Formats: sequence, C-alpha cells, structure tokens
Amino acid sequence: MSLLEAIADVGRDPGTGGYRRSAWSDADMALREWFAGEAQQRGLALVEDGNGNQLAWWGADPAEGHDALLLGSHLDSVPDGGAYDGPLGVVSSLAAVDALQRDGFRPARPVVVANFADEEGARFGVACAGSRLAAGALAPERALALRDRDGRSLAEVVRARGRDPEAVGPAEWLTRVGTFVELHVEQGRSLVHDGAAVGVASAIWPHGRWRFDFRGEANHAGATPMPDRHDPVQAFAATVLAARRLATAAGARATFGRLAVEPGGTNAIPSRVQAWLDSRAAGEADLAELVAAVTAAARAAAEEDGTSVEVVAESVSPAVSFDAGLRDRLATLLDAPVLPTGAGHDAGVLSPLLPTAMLFVRNPTGVSHAPSEFASDEDCAAGVEALTAVVRDLAGAS
Amino acid sequence: MSLLEAIADVGRDPGTGGYRRSAWSDADMALREWFAGEAQQRGLALVEDGNGNQLAWWGADPAEGHDALLLGSHLDSVPDGGAYDGPLGVVSSLAAVDALQRDGFRPARPVVVANFADEEGARFGVACAGSRLAAGALAPERALALRDRDGRSLAEVVRARGRDPEAVGPAEWLTRVGTFVELHVEQGRSLVHDGAAVGVASAIWPHGRWRFDFRGEANHAGATPMPDRHDPVQAFAATVLAARRLATAAGARATFGRLAVEPGGTNAIPSRVQAWLDSRAAGEADLAELVAAVTAAARAAAEEDGTSVEVVAESVSPAVSFDAGLRDRLATLLDAPVLPTGAGHDAGVLSPLLPTAMLFVRNPTGVSHAPSEFASDEDCAAGVEALTAVVRDLAGAS
Repeated sequence: MSLLEAIADVGRDPGTGGYRRSAWSDADMALREWFAGEAQQRGLALVEDGNGNQLAWWGADPAEGHDALLLGSHLDSVPDGGAYDGPLGVVSSLAAVDALQRDGFRPARPVVVANFADEEGARFGVACAGSRLAAGALAPERALALRDRDGRSLAEVVRARGRDPEAVGPAEWLTRVGTFVELHVEQGRSLVHDGAAVGVASAIWPHGRWRFDFRGEANHAGATPMPDRHDPVQAFAATVLAARRLATAAGARATFGRLAVEPGGTNAIPSRVQAWLDSRAAGEADLAELVAAVTAAARAAAEEDGTSVEVVAESVSPAVSFDAGLRDRLATLLDAPVLPTGAGHDAGVLSPLLPTAMLFVRNPTGVSHAPSEFASDEDCAAGVEALTAVVRDLAGAS
Repeated sequence: MSLLEAIADVGRDPGTGGYRRSAWSDADMALREWFAGEAQQRGLALVEDGNGNQLAWWGADPAEGHDALLLGSHLDSVPDGGAYDGPLGVVSSLAAVDALQRDGFRPARPVVVANFADEEGARFGVACAGSRLAAGALAPERALALRDRDGRSLAEVVRARGRDPEAVGPAEWLTRVGTFVELHVEQGRSLVHDGAAVGVASAIWPHGRWRFDFRGEANHAGATPMPDRHDPVQAFAATVLAARRLATAAGARATFGRLAVEPGGTNAIPSRVQAWLDSRAAGEADLAELVAAVTAAARAAAEEDGTSVEVVAESVSPAVSFDAGLRDRLATLLDAPVLPTGAGHDAGVLSPLLPTAMLFVRNPTGVSHAPSEFASDEDCAAGVEALTAVVRDLAGAS
C-alpha cells in the first residue's frame, strides 16, 4: 500500500524490522508532520487538540462543523511493533478520501480523519491516552504526572515538544462528532477462518494493566544459603505460572510482558521486581475474578518467602459493545462477518459517547505488536473500498 | 573507619544509600585517583598495569622488587552495593602500612597494596576481570569484546579512559609477587556464630555465571489466546522455581538476579528473555550437576511451550583451596577460626599461581552486595591489627 510505504522507514529498527514509534518520540513527531502534509495535499483543514490528537476536516470548518463522521486511528506503535496496527486505519482513511474526491463526492456531513495520540500507552503506561483525555475519561492531572522509563513526566515531554500542558484535557471538537468508524488490522485469525478480507467488530473485551510490585531483600548470590533468602524473583515466577494456568482455565488472557528487576546485578539477589500484568476476559466479572486470583497467588507465594507484593491497577477499561444499529448496518452494507476482539482501541474509548464501529482487515499471520503483523495489498485495498462505501453510506447526500 | 569515610560519598545513591561504582565509571575513576593520592602520601610507588590494576609498592622499585607480599582488594561495587565489599580490604591494607610506618617497621620484602580492576564484573559480566587478565586466566581479545548494557565494549571503555587496549593482558609484575593476603568483609554470619572478629579462609566454592537465552514469538497480549502463545516468560518462570528447588536440595546456590525482556511492552507477549544464572556449590561436580539439572528443567519447560532456550557459560571458576601452610600459619598467628565462602575473590584467581590467603572481618547482618552490609569500627580495627601482624610475620626481618 503506497501510503504505508511512504512511512515505512520512520522509526524502523534495522535489526528486527519492527517499529519503535512511541508517543512523542522523534519518530512519532515525524509521523505527525507527515500526516499534516497529507491532509494539506487533500485540502483537509488540520487542527491539533490540546492532547496531541490530529484532526483533518473535510467539508466543514474545524471550528464549526458538526455531526461529523470521524475516521482514522493512530500512528504510534509498541516497542518493536508491526507496520499495520494503527497506521493502516489512518492511511486507509486518507485513501478513502482520495477515492471519493476522485469521484467528485461531496460529503453531506463533515468527514474527519484522525491521528490519535499515544494509543498504545507503551511509553507512559496508559493506553489510548489521547482519546481518553479528549473524552474526559482520563484526568489531565493524572495523565500529566505519568512518567516514562527515563523518569520524564508527560507534562515535561509535552512542553519539550512545544505544546502547553495546560491545554491537555476534554476536547470540544468531540462534541461535534456524530459517528466514529475506526479501521484496524485484525489481531488474530478470525477473518482467515471466515475467508473474508474485512469484518465488523461486535465488542471489545474488558481489559487492564496492573503493576505487581514484589519486594524482598538484596543479598549476595554466592554467600546467602537458599533458606535464608527473601528473593522476590521467586514469587514473581510463581505468579507468572499461576497467571497462565488461571487465564487458560477461564478462557481469558494474562500476560507479563514488561519487567524491572533491582538492583539487577548478576551476583546479587534482587530487592525488587516490578512486573506489569496485562489481562483481558470476555466479561467484566470474569476479568475481576481472574485478576483477584492472580493477586491471591502472588500474595501466597510472597508470604511463603518472607517477601511482599503490592498490586496497583494502572488502567482498567470496561467491556465495549459497539452500537448495534451501526454494526448491523455496516455488516449488511459490506456483507461482512461480525467478530469480537481482545484488543483495546480508541473506538472503545469513544464508544460510550457516540455511535462507534470498527472494521477489521484480515491478518494472515494473526500476529500483531510484532514485525510479522501483516495484511496483503489486496486485503488493504478491500479495506479502503469498504471504508469508502461506509463514507458514501453515512455521509452521502440523503 | 576514617579511610572509608573519606570515600563514603563517591558513587553513593542518595535514595538507597547503596553504591554504584561499576568498573571504569566516573565513580570508579574518582576512587582510583583517591587511591593514587593515598599511595603518594605514604611514599608508596604507584603503578597501573595494562588492565587497570593499581599497585602501590613499599620498600622496592615497582620495576624490580621481587617476592613481594601483596595486600589489597578492589574498590568497585555491584549496583546498589555496600560500603565494605572491596574497599575494606584496600583501606585496611593502607591502615596496616600506616601502623607499621609509625612503628618504624622496614619490610624485609616488598609490600604491595593493590586495587584490582573490575572485581565485581557487574558491568561486563565477567567477575575478577582485572586479576584474571593479569594472571593470564582471561584472554585479552575475549575481555576487550565484552559489552556493557549500553552496548559499549571494554576496548571502547578502556580507550575512552585514556588507556591502551593493546596493553590489556598478562602482567609481568605478578611474577614478582611471592604471597597474596586479601582482607574482605565476611559475606555471611559464620564469624558471628564463632564469636570472632576475624577469620581465615579455607576455600572458595566453585561458581559461575550462565546466560539463559529464552526465545519465543512476540504477539498481542490481548488478542492471542493462551494456547496459541509462545511466551518465553513462562519457561523462564518455571526455570526460576526449578533452580531454587534443585539448589536447595543440593545445599548449593542458584540465583537469577539480572534479566532483560524484549520487546518489553506491557501489551506485547515477549519474544525473548535473557536471564543470568549465578550458581555455586561446595564441589565442582556438584556445581556441574546443578547447572545441568537447571538447564534440563529450562529445556523441558521451553519445549512444552514451543519456545527455546540456549545456555551459555559466561564465566566458570573452579574450586579454590587456599594454600594450607599459609592458612594454618595465619590461623595460628591470629588465633582465628577457619571458614569457607561461596563468594568469588581476586584471591581465588591468584591462588593457583602463588601462596594466597584471605582474612574475613565479621559482618553482623551477614548481608553483602546491598546497603545493609556492615562491619563495626571495632571489628574493622581488629582486621587492621590482624593484617599488621600478618605483614610483620611474612615481611619482617628474618
């Protein structure tokens, strides 16, 4: 897909082929500039809200247009992420605008292409920060105090990028959006099984992130007999195994993908392990029960070793059921299968505020958040075609 | 102890009170300068060998003196280490020289106080690098290619500190040393149980470091069902628990104190976990058997998950039995108990080359490699007194 090729080198790790486009990084800033240029080329009026979300308006003044049809997704990535998660939705929206403009289509309501800021939450630990802030679902003071791994707060980072931390918070433009349709690469293989290039989302599983803070006592790795140790790595390891066992039994998901061990010397028993649990389940009660069981397993293991563990919920997102009317309308229009997802999205954040839908594009590997994430050129074109049909349907002359 | 107080602020973490004095760091360089100044004040002739080991000669020209009595230890630390592990041996040696000079003692053989480079191996992963290189027990080309966590090689680091990488390797001065006595804080509580301020070492357990490289497949933490995962954190966790079980059963030691997880995103299943095993046992066969059993447990766990693990021995040190004649002579001279240790030391490295002994000073907490490592002023003074007696005995007029 030629628009994806235009940004193929931005933030790419030459070793792995994966992308490192964390929020507000140099790579992310380059992508924002690129997006602004693409908007300008199409005659779209670009505005950026106080949260770093970019909105390219077609068919109305950004300060006045109302009942807009919002498209788009995000351009940031997880560390060593793939090329499609996020960017496919942004470039497909631009390509749909291209197709419609070529045909002389004049939208009956404003069409807005968004690039949402910090969807992945890879840097500051809160996913969908840009849309959450805009929606009033994340308090600005809490967001601004978040720190990255280098200890820099979001407030510092925003200021260093020439933005005003005071402007972070609920966005007025969102009250003038009537519908949101986000296209996204599928993160799984349901569409492969369905034999369909494009699908429509039914729901997003509830999910969240919990920080497990295991504390023990540092000591010499050679001189300290095993029974005298208070090694927090042990309780962490027991928790990892328990999380898999419990999540598997519940048909849910639990992952420890990020860790920090202190002091981190080869010949020192650690004093502290911080580990982040990402967990998801089909229902909110199931999720709460799973996390409570993992926490209990962690506590029991820590107690046995004379260590301790504290668990802090860093972000928890409720279940999202997308607007049923819009979902059925798009599924019928596109003759597309309907499927749920375990992944969070900006569409999930905005869903309580306005009718929201998602389109998924088939991913033959099923892999995402990794370099092998993929969608074929044919399927990407089918995604653009679907999105074009959706805009004709939802923003066509009545 | 006043000489320790002089360096109490160098490389100290104000948050934890622990020390960050890794090899060739700014803190380490400051300590080297301090050591050079102390040598000069006492009229000792300071030389530095090609490996960064500092030698302060008393009673002979550093280029000619032979059959020297070597004292000293190291000034570097593990991350967040204590104040005594290493520095106590260096400052006690200087204090012994002070006491002997005050008494007008003239050594009958040269007395040399050493500050060995990079004893802890905290930065480049090989313990006792300075003494190993000097002894020819570590190949210069292997050492120079070692990299720290920032990807800098020892060769680059040595060059950046104004030293010549070509000079790294076996040291001629070592052939002119006849005896080595290293004083060290005890890493354990044997002397507490014995009710003695000072003890003499019998042996060092064989020990080593093995890098376990677990590899799986990165994927989305939310969208990937548990049974479809190839998550290397799982095999790592199983290995941690197996290592404790096996080491406890064997009366040996196994520790995973250092970890690196890739890509390290909260919502990504990792593709890779690197974990360093530090293991020690009373005998070499016991150690080999333990590491083989931990490796087998890791392989079995990885195989079950469709992941893999490779194990690389980064450094393995054989058992050290200190010179029996010297050990008995010092134990009798000082009326001190004799005890083994699980910790490695420069004395262990030099022991195959020349008669070597160690003195331990009581540590009431038993903790080391952590800020709570401790020795009382009285016990430190007893250590200096013991070392002074040893020099009188081994370097006195015959």
